[in-house]
Parts: sequence; C-alpha cells; structure tokens
Amino acid sequence: MTDHIVKSYENELKRLRALMTEMGGMVENQVEQAIQGVVQRDTAAAARAIDADPAVDAMEHEAEQFVIRMLALRQPMAQDLRQIVSSLKMTTDLERIGDYAANVAKRSVVLSQFSLSFPLSGLAQMARLVQENLKMVVDAIGDGDTDKALLVWRSDAPIDDLYNTIFRELITYMMEDPRNITPCTHLLFIAKNLERIGDHATNIAETIYYAVAGEPLTGARPKADSSSFTVVRPAGI
Amino acid sequence: MTDHIVKSYENELKRLRALMTEMGGMVENQVEQAIQGVVQRDTAAAARAIDADPAVDAMEHEAEQFVIRMLALRQPMAQDLRQIVSSLKMTTDLERIGDYAANVAKRSVVLSQFSLSFPLSGLAQMARLVQENLKMVVDAIGDGDTDKALLVWRSDAPIDDLYNTIFRELITYMMEDPRNITPCTHLLFIAKNLERIGDHATNIAETIYYAVAGEPLTGARPKADSSSFTVVRPAGI
Repeated sequence: MTDHIVKSYENELKRLRALMTEMGGMVENQVEQAIQGVVQRDTAAAARAIDADPAVDAMEHEAEQFVIRMLALRQPMAQDLRQIVSSLKMTTDLERIGDYAANVAKRSVVLSQFSLSFPLSGLAQMARLVQENLKMVVDAIGDGDTDKALLVWRSDAPIDDLYNTIFRELITYMMEDPRNITPCTHLLFIAKNLERIGDHATNIAETIYYAVAGEPLTGARPKADSSSFTVVRPAGI
Repeated sequence: MTDHIVKSYENELKRLRALMTEMGGMVENQVEQAIQGVVQRDTAAAARAIDADPAVDAMEHEAEQFVIRMLALRQPMAQDLRQIVSSLKMTTDLERIGDYAANVAKRSVVLSQFSLSFPLSGLAQMARLVQENLKMVVDAIGDGDTDKALLVWRSDAPIDDLYNTIFRELITYMMEDPRNITPCTHLLFIAKNLERIGDHATNIAETIYYAVAGEPLTGARPKADSSSFTVVRPAGI
C-alpha cells in the first residue's frame, strides 16, 4: 500500500472509533435520562429518553454502512479486521442498551401514576453502578483500553447481586399489598432492564478485549444473577 | 478470479449458510424443550434446554471465526459482502434466542415447585406462534427466501397482542391470591422471553430481506407490545 492509502485507511479506522464513541455517548445520555425518569419521577426526562431512540437506531445503521464500505474498499487483515468486525458487534450492543433505556423510560411514565409506599434506594444504587460501568466501557472503546475493559468485566457481579436483592424485595412488597402489584411489576422489569444494560456493557468489554488482545477473555464470566431461581412465599404459608 | 477460486468461494458461502441453518435448528430445538418444560412441566426437557446453551454459544463462535476468515481471504463485494455481514448479525440473534430459551427453562424448574390454580393455555398458544415464526425464519435463512421473511415480519403483531393479554391476566392472578405472586412473576418473565424470541425472529427476517433484496424493509415494524404501559388495579380501588 502507498503512504497515502495507509494514511486514509488509518483515518477511517479512527473515524470508526469516533462513531462508536459518539454512539456510546448518546446511549449513556439516554440511560441517564431514563434513570432520572424512574428515580426522580421526572416524566420530561423519560420523554427525552424515549425520543432519543430513533437517533440511536440511525447511528447504528450509519456505523454499519461505514463498516460495510470499509470491508468492501480495503482488505483489512489481522487486528484491523478484528477491530472492524468487533465494532459491528459493539453497535448491536449499544443499540440494545438504547432499547432497554427507552423501555425503562416508558415504564417510568406508568410508575409516575402511583404513589409508592417503599423506597427506590436499592434501584437507584444499582442504576449508579450500571451507569459507571457503561461510562467506563464507552471510554474503553475510544482508547482501546483493555485494563478498563477488564475492570468493567469484573464489576458486573455486584450489579447482579443487587438485582437479586431488589427482585426479592419487590416480590415481598407485592405480597404485602395488592396495590403494589402493578407498580412493582414494572419495577421488576426496570431492574431487569438495568441488569441487561450491565450485561451488554460486559459484552462490549469482552469485545474490546478480544479486538485489542486478539484472544478471548479466559475464565467463566462472573455471572451472579440467580433471580431466575428465586422463590418467595407469602408469610405464614 | 479463476473458475477454481470462484467455485471454492461459492462453496464457502454455501458452507456459511449451512452453518446458520444448523445453528438455527439447534436453537429451534432448545426453544421447543424449554416450552415443554413450562407447558408440560417437564423438568427433564428443561434440563436439556439449559444444557444445550454452551453448544449454541460455541456455534456462534465458530460462525464468527468462519466469517472473519472469509473476509480476510476473499474480497467479497455487493451482495456477497451483505450476506457475510448479515450472517454475523443473524448468529447474534440466534445466540440471544438460545439465551432466552435457557432462561425460560430455568424458570420452568422453579414453576414446577408450585401447583397453579389457573391454566397456561394463553402462554401455550403464544409459544406455538413463536415456534412457528422461528421455524419459518430458519427455513428462510437456508433458502434466502424473502417471501418467508416478510411473512415472519408480519406475524409478530399477533404474538405481541397475546403477550399483552397474558401480562394482564398474570397481574390479575397475583392480585387474587398472594400465593400466585412468585409463580406469576416467573411466568411474566417467561412470557416476556417468548416475546423477545419473537422479536429476534423478526430481526432475522429483516436481515434476510436486506441481505437478499439489498434494501431495508420499508415501513414501520408492526409492533404491538404495549405491556410497558399496562396498568391493572385491584378490584374495588
């Protein structure tokens, strides 16, 4: 390849990384608005999170078209090829995070119709951890930073632990008072959506590691969500 | 390109399609076992669905490696490139379907500890529609059949309608008797997982259409899941 072609190729790789980071920032903001919708009962923030979804989808499409063009015009090899293919996977994860954020926001609008007789502090704490991980993994995309990626990968288990606790608490509130059932059902799904956002951040961490290091993260993924096996029975039964 | 290279390239594309179809068949079977776990309360079938997950994940990895090798060794253009990139997207969707099936199976094991005071006929009907769509879309992958893909794309709305009905029913059962709360919570997530499996089948239908026709499916996606906005209140409140 001539110097000119090499240079324009490197610019394209940079542009691809910038696209990912921009999409990551959009999604971070969408998640923040959605969480504000739930925790602060801020329906205007929720509306912004819902309205942001088409722009995130359009960004995914743009990144995908860019990747297809790069694959068609260049013959990327080894690490470059891994990076390009990885960015396709990462846009899929980011787009899903955006979907989950929009769903959290929609449910927060329903929640705002109910006065809740219990605190949302556990959920707020879980949301903070998820936001921290998402921010760190978006930074890691921009820097191709495997240390940050590893940190995110290892930080998913505490989120899952909190999710399991919240899951049990919400079921208990439902058993205490049938008026809690509808809001707690939406809160169950909100907590689940946050847990899934955390999972997608972990996916992205794995993808970054693989793209940069050239080998998959070894060892079982630190997975602590046991809520699928949860049994809570009403008192006295 | 010489005839020999063209031939081996065509063989690779065929092999890629065969990999997708094989992975699709594995996932279809996994979904069937998981549904049998719920509807027939068959814990052995549920165990098979859970045990099948690592093989599906391995298959995704194999398909991905195959795609990266093809991209590195060939210079695919136009429809071939679209088909190769599309297959990456489809393996991601198939792998997610497998995850949802495993989660349904896990929850069915918990459910088997409860005697239910209500029928699962709505859920069984929803499961049938989801399985039909999944089967049709896997066939469409093998044949590159845009008609079948369109049919799947149009058949998602009835699944969403059923899901909304089931969602309301389950909340009502919870309000009637607190002993229903734990099993109904798992059933809510099982129904949601089935709805998501239907969504991923629809994603695959869109991807097939784009890969073959070269243009995205126009018009809004027929989307009827309104459960995020559902409000059910206890009688007399």
